[in-house]
Amino acid sequence: MGKVLVFGHKSPDTDAICSAIAFAELKNKLGEEVEPVRLGDLNGETEYVLKHFQTEAPRFVKTVANEVPAVYLVDHNERPQSVEDIEDVEVLSVVDHHRIANFETKAPLYYRAEPVGCTATIINKLYKENGVEISKTIAGLMLSSIISDTLLFKSPTCTEEDVKAAKELEAISGVDAQSYGLDMLKAGTNVADKSAEELISIDVKPFEMGKYAVEIAQVNVVDINDVLSRQAELETVINKEIEAKNLDLFVLAVTNILTSDSEALILGKAAAAAESAFKVTLDNNTATLKGVVSRKKQIVPVLTEELTK
Amino acid sequence: MGKVLVFGHKSPDTDAICSAIAFAELKNKLGEEVEPVRLGDLNGETEYVLKHFQTEAPRFVKTVANEVPAVYLVDHNERPQSVEDIEDVEVLSVVDHHRIANFETKAPLYYRAEPVGCTATIINKLYKENGVEISKTIAGLMLSSIISDTLLFKSPTCTEEDVKAAKELEAISGVDAQSYGLDMLKAGTNVADKSAEELISIDVKPFEMGKYAVEIAQVNVVDINDVLSRQAELETVINKEIEAKNLDLFVLAVTNILTSDSEALILGKAAAAAESAFKVTLDNNTATLKGVVSRKKQIVPVLTEELTK
Repeated sequence: MGKVLVFGHKSPDTDAICSAIAFAELKNKLGEEVEPVRLGDLNGETEYVLKHFQTEAPRFVKTVANEVPAVYLVDHNERPQSVEDIEDVEVLSVVDHHRIANFETKAPLYYRAEPVGCTATIINKLYKENGVEISKTIAGLMLSSIISDTLLFKSPTCTEEDVKAAKELEAISGVDAQSYGLDMLKAGTNVADKSAEELISIDVKPFEMGKYAVEIAQVNVVDINDVLSRQAELETVINKEIEAKNLDLFVLAVTNILTSDSEALILGKAAAAAESAFKVTLDNNTATLKGVVSRKKQIVPVLTEELTK
Repeated sequence: MGKVLVFGHKSPDTDAICSAIAFAELKNKLGEEVEPVRLGDLNGETEYVLKHFQTEAPRFVKTVANEVPAVYLVDHNERPQSVEDIEDVEVLSVVDHHRIANFETKAPLYYRAEPVGCTATIINKLYKENGVEISKTIAGLMLSSIISDTLLFKSPTCTEEDVKAAKELEAISGVDAQSYGLDMLKAGTNVADKSAEELISIDVKPFEMGKYAVEIAQVNVVDINDVLSRQAELETVINKEIEAKNLDLFVLAVTNILTSDSEALILGKAAAAAESAFKVTLDNNTATLKGVVSRKKQIVPVLTEELTK
């Protein structure tokens, strides 16, 4: 088998980047030629992580079929979230912790999904199942993935398995999850130097829900007002995005990592359906989503339920 | 969590039945209340297997939502192959060795697919990963699944992992795979007492390939002529099936388990596409497919490729 590329989703977060690096290293140690790549710019949190563990960022790619016939996916499976020419390559394996949708193969493949908080938690198991030792650096990167995806174990997506994996990775990496984790999360909340376009694209994911085209962006902050004070400017760029992509709904969730609540800015012709889904009434296009920190567990399922009724 | 049902695909084969039984037993030993059920009649081979290991057949069900809110799937994922009300229940986990298609969930789930010859090979791993002992009976049933799906290790779908699992299961069950396996496979080739309707439905699977509705049936024999001597009668029932379900293509593969070749009877308006796919010319609607024994690896991918061009 020739070289294979592995990557996480577009608008990569820490798990999409670090799980690709960790999975490539596992495959390399098993004798395969695998290179981790990324489908977008690093966010501030991930930059902090890679710098801390002195790891080079994966190479950016726009397409993959021009390089390789086959790929591995981590941390995603849905086509709209993957590389733009995903239809032109064979997907050999997927390691993921999201719902399965808009995904289809011609032939059998290795697919490992578990309903845990983080892809790195599953990759930690794969290292053990394959009897491959985890290096100190890779342990640090996987620990960072878990901290990022579970908001330092506070998200409802966090499972006992994530906590257990994080403890194992703390021991290997020699990193204290609590103190390192808070610094790391805060590094991702610096929004002052970001344009409105950047804010809505740091961590955005497209979804097809029934007949509706939906995008859900999330920004982590330590003060909701850091983002909401720029609501007018944000609405302008979101409405542009809605028009350009013919979206039915755009949700920007601004999540306070200290209080674990989100403020949602909701635009698009399906906004009323979002109100029903979240059982809120929009006031000036915004609503508080109490205790909501997880797009995957607290936003996508309720919206999907409502929009596929 | 309440009771959960687990089942393999419609028109169940030995793996669909025995993997459901083995998976249910694993979950029961882990403390969950899980019942294996079946979506169709047992074939002759599976009847032989259950009798040999003195195991009761799983209960037949037509629907599941009237009994449980959630299910486990084994040995399939595609909706047309699953229970008819699959949309009305939550799929909590899938263990499978087929391509992924026509499958979508609202929420994350446990999904374990590996490109091996048999679902039981993966379930054997799950027992080990969970530290659960495999009973002598379950080992015999899982060994039967592997023998059935790999045609006694001769199918191109058979991997080193299947052979390795079979050896482990031989040791636990005390069964000799070669002598037991040949008797078991032959028990599935008795077609003399079957009506033409039964012959095309013993092991039939529906597929959506691009815009085409396709059904592919397979019958194992020790003499091709046992089936092909009844071609006129078979064509009548296949054409009825095509009309009733508005199919574009029906392929009946008659597989000689001793020579590992198949004779295909191909009907429907997309028959010409099947000729291109298999690089054969139909003579009286039939063609020899040399060395073809695996629907999954040698029939579905080439037809999908051709019909989605």
